[in-house]
Amino acid sequence: MSPTPVSFTPPTAPASYSWEATDEEVAARYGVPIERIVRFDLNTSPAPPELAGRVLATGRFETPLSEYAPSDYRRLVAAAAARYGVATEEVIVGAGADEILDIVGKVFLAAGASAVVPSPSYAMYRVITEQRGATVIAVPRQGPAAGYAMDVPAVRATARNASVVWLCSPNNPTALPEPDGAIATLLGGLAEDAATDGRDGPIVVLDEAYAEFVDRSLVGLRERFSNLIVVRTASKAYGLAGLRVGFGIARPEVIARLNPFRPPGSVSTVSVTVVTEALLDPTAAAANIKRVISERERLRSALAAVGWEVGPSVTNFVLVDLGSPESAAATAERLLQRGLVPRTFPADHLLADHLRLTVRAPEENDRLIEAAAALKGEVPA
Amino acid sequence: MSPTPVSFTPPTAPASYSWEATDEEVAARYGVPIERIVRFDLNTSPAPPELAGRVLATGRFETPLSEYAPSDYRRLVAAAAARYGVATEEVIVGAGADEILDIVGKVFLAAGASAVVPSPSYAMYRVITEQRGATVIAVPRQGPAAGYAMDVPAVRATARNASVVWLCSPNNPTALPEPDGAIATLLGGLAEDAATDGRDGPIVVLDEAYAEFVDRSLVGLRERFSNLIVVRTASKAYGLAGLRVGFGIARPEVIARLNPFRPPGSVSTVSVTVVTEALLDPTAAAANIKRVISERERLRSALAAVGWEVGPSVTNFVLVDLGSPESAAATAERLLQRGLVPRTFPADHLLADHLRLTVRAPEENDRLIEAAAALKGEVPA
Repeated sequence: MSPTPVSFTPPTAPASYSWEATDEEVAARYGVPIERIVRFDLNTSPAPPELAGRVLATGRFETPLSEYAPSDYRRLVAAAAARYGVATEEVIVGAGADEILDIVGKVFLAAGASAVVPSPSYAMYRVITEQRGATVIAVPRQGPAAGYAMDVPAVRATARNASVVWLCSPNNPTALPEPDGAIATLLGGLAEDAATDGRDGPIVVLDEAYAEFVDRSLVGLRERFSNLIVVRTASKAYGLAGLRVGFGIARPEVIARLNPFRPPGSVSTVSVTVVTEALLDPTAAAANIKRVISERERLRSALAAVGWEVGPSVTNFVLVDLGSPESAAATAERLLQRGLVPRTFPADHLLADHLRLTVRAPEENDRLIEAAAALKGEVPA
Repeated sequence: MSPTPVSFTPPTAPASYSWEATDEEVAARYGVPIERIVRFDLNTSPAPPELAGRVLATGRFETPLSEYAPSDYRRLVAAAAARYGVATEEVIVGAGADEILDIVGKVFLAAGASAVVPSPSYAMYRVITEQRGATVIAVPRQGPAAGYAMDVPAVRATARNASVVWLCSPNNPTALPEPDGAIATLLGGLAEDAATDGRDGPIVVLDEAYAEFVDRSLVGLRERFSNLIVVRTASKAYGLAGLRVGFGIARPEVIARLNPFRPPGSVSTVSVTVVTEALLDPTAAAANIKRVISERERLRSALAAVGWEVGPSVTNFVLVDLGSPESAAATAERLLQRGLVPRTFPADHLLADHLRLTVRAPEENDRLIEAAAALKGEVPA
């Protein structure tokens, strides 16, 4: 083969991409002892399931630590398929749900393409899209009175020229699901438009990271809509964020298109083993989900009692309206001074006057409630 | 923002991308009990370092399993920087060395670009390149008499229009390093050509996955050549392939270009903790390296004694010339029937008449030696 002369046009770097400050960074900046730092900003669960410790203690994993995990993650795929009620050839494994998003981006987003995001939503959709040299088209969600539902006709119209539509339900950071039927309606509309236009419709990614907390999934829609890829994770309800395991679920022919872009072994053999056991044990997530839901409602009431405007939530986090971006920023600063780390939104964000707060363990939530009470009057509205 | 009308041009899928058969697949296909399967095809070490078991038994990791590892992998980066003798801002962490290659591909390989591979070499360079819609230009290596050294002038000339040059030294699957000075000469030539042409030279990735076995690294060359990215891994000499941790090492300005394309948390908190400890402990890899080198020479002698033509090796694997592709295929088949899995090469590969064999534990190597003796006469040359 002879060299092809091409000009060197590197992919464009994503516009902005900053990660959450680490515990160490927060501790250093606010002069708080590191053991007093509590992460209300990461939407993780308060503790891993008990079985995780038991599996680790055995020291026996899918393969010895010196060997790669099986490249087909066979037992993990089987456990996920059983748990989500799909066939094994409808499952792809990633190092966290983020890797599933990355693989979708690699396969379906060419440089110059566009992707639709009903906004606000999970920040990684933009990052992944821009990493591919593609462009995000943000379609504003409806307001809080409409449960921040996506604007189905606007998303449908915008998606007419897009390669990917990134959906998240229940949605992060708005804590609510799309209304009944909205996603099926959108998928039907996209299929109609694709037929009219004589082309493939866009891939629709439905991120169900928080689905277990509301005990509903739209994974069944893949049977009618072959352009649907549902994303699930062990990071939220399963309490295993530190192990980095996520899944894509789609029809076999879609998984077959994703597979050539999947690395053969991005997930550790320890993670494969623990998450397999967690998926096989119906009680692993159940106890956590129950505790989180109960604590969520306690936290909502207690924060409301001190005058905070807390939105409804079907997830493991709540969205609080502080009335103004200044008030949200000042509140965040005062929480951070106490070692309590909220999720903030930048000044140009639709939710700049809000904070997002993860539901954590009772004693951690108590510290947040106490702080909210102490801040009352301190922070201008 | 209004939708940009673009035609849907998905990135091209890599031409071919198949993973090694799993233990289960080999066991089923050859009717061998799974516990009798030995992987001579994956270049892993026979066992993890002892400290890995101790760290796992404590159940205490960088973060609880329910939390993400720190997004900056701070302690792991510090341990890697100390181990490799570089600054912390010269290190990037990935889920295995493969993820470092993937990030390089994302940043530096646009669709339509080309990448140079002195061939044969590690198969993932082609996969990563083709996943980006870029093209591999294979520059044939010199023959065994020249230690399979790359053809420096040909690589240099070919790289003139390329975005990336993928180097591997010691090289997989040829088991030997580039000759002294060859890589520095190439880097100097590329810099000259770039200056002449008034453009940036290509990025040069130097994969040093097997460097510990020869106790040499060219990481120091990054000080003279800012386009150099050295790749290291915990998978080979450290015996921790199952944990999926790899590193990229380059000048801070190069790491800064890679970082926006790095996922914030692809590496498990368990992996972060164990690999940090392994890098901090100078004895962790040393014992394994010593054993592997001693076993390698025993294996080479024993296989030579039964008439196999075994090449020299500075790595943890050897390359055996079986004389013809038919003989290599027949030998592989007979080894597989005994549960011994060699690395084979496809019929159109430069090494189609060879097998690559990983140096394993003494009793495993004994099984290979016995099989080689038994096969003598069975397999036509």
